Amino acid sequence: MREPLGRRRWAIAEGYIPAWSHGPEPDFTSHETACILNAGEREANVELTIFFSDREPAGPYRVRVPARRTLHLRFNDLSDPEPIPRGRDFASVIESDVPIVVQHTRLDSRQAENALLSTIAFAGAE
Amino acid sequence: MREPLGRRRWAIAEGYIPAWSHGPEPDFTSHETACILNAGEREANVELTIFFSDREPAGPYRVRVPARRTLHLRFNDLSDPEPIPRGRDFASVIESDVPIVVQHTRLDSRQAENALLSTIAFAGAE
Amino acid sequence: MREPLGRRRWAIAEGYIPAWSHGPEPDFTSHETACILNAGEREANVELTIFFSDREPAGPYRVRVPARRTLHLRFNDLSDPEPIPRGRDFASVIESDVPIVVQHTRLDSRQAENALLSTIAFAGAE
Amino acid sequence: MREPLGRRRWAIAEGYIPAWSHGPEPDFTSHETACILNAGEREANVELTIFFSDREPAGPYRVRVPARRTLHLRFNDLSDPEPIPRGRDFASVIESDVPIVVQHTRLDSRQAENALLSTIAFAGAE
Repeated sequence: MREPLGRRRWAIAEGYIPAWSHGPEPDFTSHETACILNAGEREANVELTIFFSDREPAGPYRVRVPARRTLHLRFNDLSDPEPIPRGRDFASVIESDVPIVVQHTRLDSRQAENALLSTIAFAGAE
Repeated sequence: MREPLGRRRWAIAEGYIPAWSHGPEPDFTSHETACILNAGEREANVELTIFFSDREPAGPYRVRVPARRTLHLRFNDLSDPEPIPRGRDFASVIESDVPIVVQHTRLDSRQAENALLSTIAFAGAE
Repeated sequence: MREPLGRRRWAIAEGYIPAWSHGPEPDFTSHETACILNAGEREANVELTIFFSDREPAGPYRVRVPARRTLHLRFNDLSDPEPIPRGRDFASVIESDVPIVVQHTRLDSRQAENALLSTIAFAGAE
Repeated sequence: MREPLGRRRWAIAEGYIPAWSHGPEPDFTSHETACILNAGEREANVELTIFFSDREPAGPYRVRVPARRTLHLRFNDLSDPEPIPRGRDFASVIESDVPIVVQHTRLDSRQAENALLSTIAFAGAE
């Protein structure tokens, strides 16, 4: 059997949820997403910690990604233990008990035409 | 002779084929692409597996990339064993029998002006 | 205790501060950003060196990122020892005394609708 | 003395020079760029090879990047041994005799508003 694909620790140094949107909801709601792939055979228990410029981190936020599934997690939707503030810089660390792959995507629809960015997250050594 | 450039296992955690387009076809058809480079001297036999949030994975989809060639594979064009549904989150794992390089690009033309994203895919250890 | 997440040396080969902007300030001021995450328990002393195509490098520029904080550093704001010229190609090396994570983002608002790019920076071996 | 930052072999699996542009020249000419940073103390002799989907590779194209300099190389400008065709998929391998860092950026100005993408290139093991 092949080694599971991915790593257990990831970081996204960029984070920003625009404070307003433009276009039909929910597709064109401005959003910040951590796309998580669990290509393995065991459910992933994932914890996110959110870092700010001027206060202690928030979290952990807990999500589960079943075996052989992907979860495109919108930071906009996180609410427990607290929502992510809009219009403020943040960063995130994503930790899992099994290997996963994480990619960061933003749709910014503050102006009439949407803009997109995406990057593979930073993969820790483990 | 130098070691072939690339890896045999790759993952793209983000995937989404917009359900509609805007602008002249086919250049401005919204599309999601896995750009595959086979810079080596042997043909690459490539298998893609598509992961979803709420069902078992689809695939494998099989493509060949000849030696010293690139293939910019549109997920829109995959049909065997089944087409990729529009407007739904997915992720993909790309496996090859020889080293390749994979980059992920999207053109989103749902609004009047197109938006672009691109990132190197996640490279497995092998 | 787990190993701190990140690396001590990073590089961003792309850099360009557009010479003009469009849209409400300061959110839509064209900017080039190095997003730095210090997820560890010790303050990071960070030095940036800016490379050009036709002159010796500028810097070092010094910034501090407290423990458990992120800093989204706009190259536009660097002034000591000298401002970064607008409308000119540059690149940067970011060095820290503790592990950090660096991501590069640009908002280009020279035309009516903004465009975005982002990528994880290149992580050195250390 | 510290180890030079970067690698000697890089690949960009995505490549496409749009066939037309929109907006004031030359800033808004659609272009595909390999941003090369040579942060070291020795000049870099760089060779690019361009791969296509349906013919043998083109090149090598040779450029030099002086010590402590960056070169934002537009694929549009390559002409020797042959220009890169517009409107066609390609990929590239970049090889240097000293460590460099490579990032890939595109400005697409085919529609009224420009779109941007950028990603760190794939770094070979050496």
